[in-house]
Amino acid sequence: MSFLIRQLFTISRFIRNNKSFRISAFNTNAVSGNVWKLGKLNHIAIAVPSLDEAIQFYKEILGAYVSEIVPIPEHGVSTVFINLGNTKLELLHPLGEKSPIESFLKKKPEGGMHHICIEVHNIKQAIISLSGKVRTLTKEPKIGAHNKLVIFLHPKDCGGVLIELEQE
Amino acid sequence: MSFLIRQLFTISRFIRNNKSFRISAFNTNAVSGNVWKLGKLNHIAIAVPSLDEAIQFYKEILGAYVSEIVPIPEHGVSTVFINLGNTKLELLHPLGEKSPIESFLKKKPEGGMHHICIEVHNIKQAIISLSGKVRTLTKEPKIGAHNKLVIFLHPKDCGGVLIELEQE
Repeated sequence: MSFLIRQLFTISRFIRNNKSFRISAFNTNAVSGNVWKLGKLNHIAIAVPSLDEAIQFYKEILGAYVSEIVPIPEHGVSTVFINLGNTKLELLHPLGEKSPIESFLKKKPEGGMHHICIEVHNIKQAIISLSGKVRTLTKEPKIGAHNKLVIFLHPKDCGGVLIELEQE
Repeated sequence: MSFLIRQLFTISRFIRNNKSFRISAFNTNAVSGNVWKLGKLNHIAIAVPSLDEAIQFYKEILGAYVSEIVPIPEHGVSTVFINLGNTKLELLHPLGEKSPIESFLKKKPEGGMHHICIEVHNIKQAIISLSGKVRTLTKEPKIGAHNKLVIFLHPKDCGGVLIELEQE
């Protein structure tokens, strides 16, 4: 146990000593007054033409932690989760008719990065705050694949990147 | 201090109790014998046609922690780092002639996700292990923007995703 206590001291000393560096490296003014608060990267979604081939690649070739295939019919996708420790990749493959991944794979049959998902502290406040600045793909947030409220921001208002916001 | 010790006990109990869940949710067989070991997501690189507009979006509209513009002439890019807590976004804009971002923005003038960067425990072993299975964009690893060895894997062998591996 004394080893753990020493480790905690070392970590807290490191944070204290590096405080000035962190402040100079990142301008933190931006978040003042932001009540809905942008959080962690929840996942990167990758559309794949074949789940089996993608699993083979990430598991056997890259040696990643890869989940079983999880069908989510209410979202029109089958997914595979790849745990990278600090965040995850989510492989998406169309399931059923009118899958949201279908049109992406028509344009890019080899697959590719589909969207990024960032957590927010308060999604309803986020939507109010973004209104008039960034278009959303739906008017209201919906229950997403993780059973949490999500909303997608229009890539044309986000520098070509499809961004999903998810309630923490 | 006793509070910290209790916290440590709570964390270790949580890990112990959730062990069976974790094992069933992720197949960990894949990493057995993988000596070079895939690690954390270091960053998502996003090509942007205007750094000023991208800074305005991420800082003023999303309220993210946004760095100053960092020119990296030896890599032909100007970059801006966005700290999301668990990982970061790196905005890339062409700098000088023959920038690696130039051709991407010609195809996608509005910008978009350019590559993902995953850390590896031993990049030299990774290159040996991937040889014959995944093509790399250069024969040897190079010193990347973070002054660490990096190598890019060919997107045609990675399901349409440009993957950068970076030495931890």
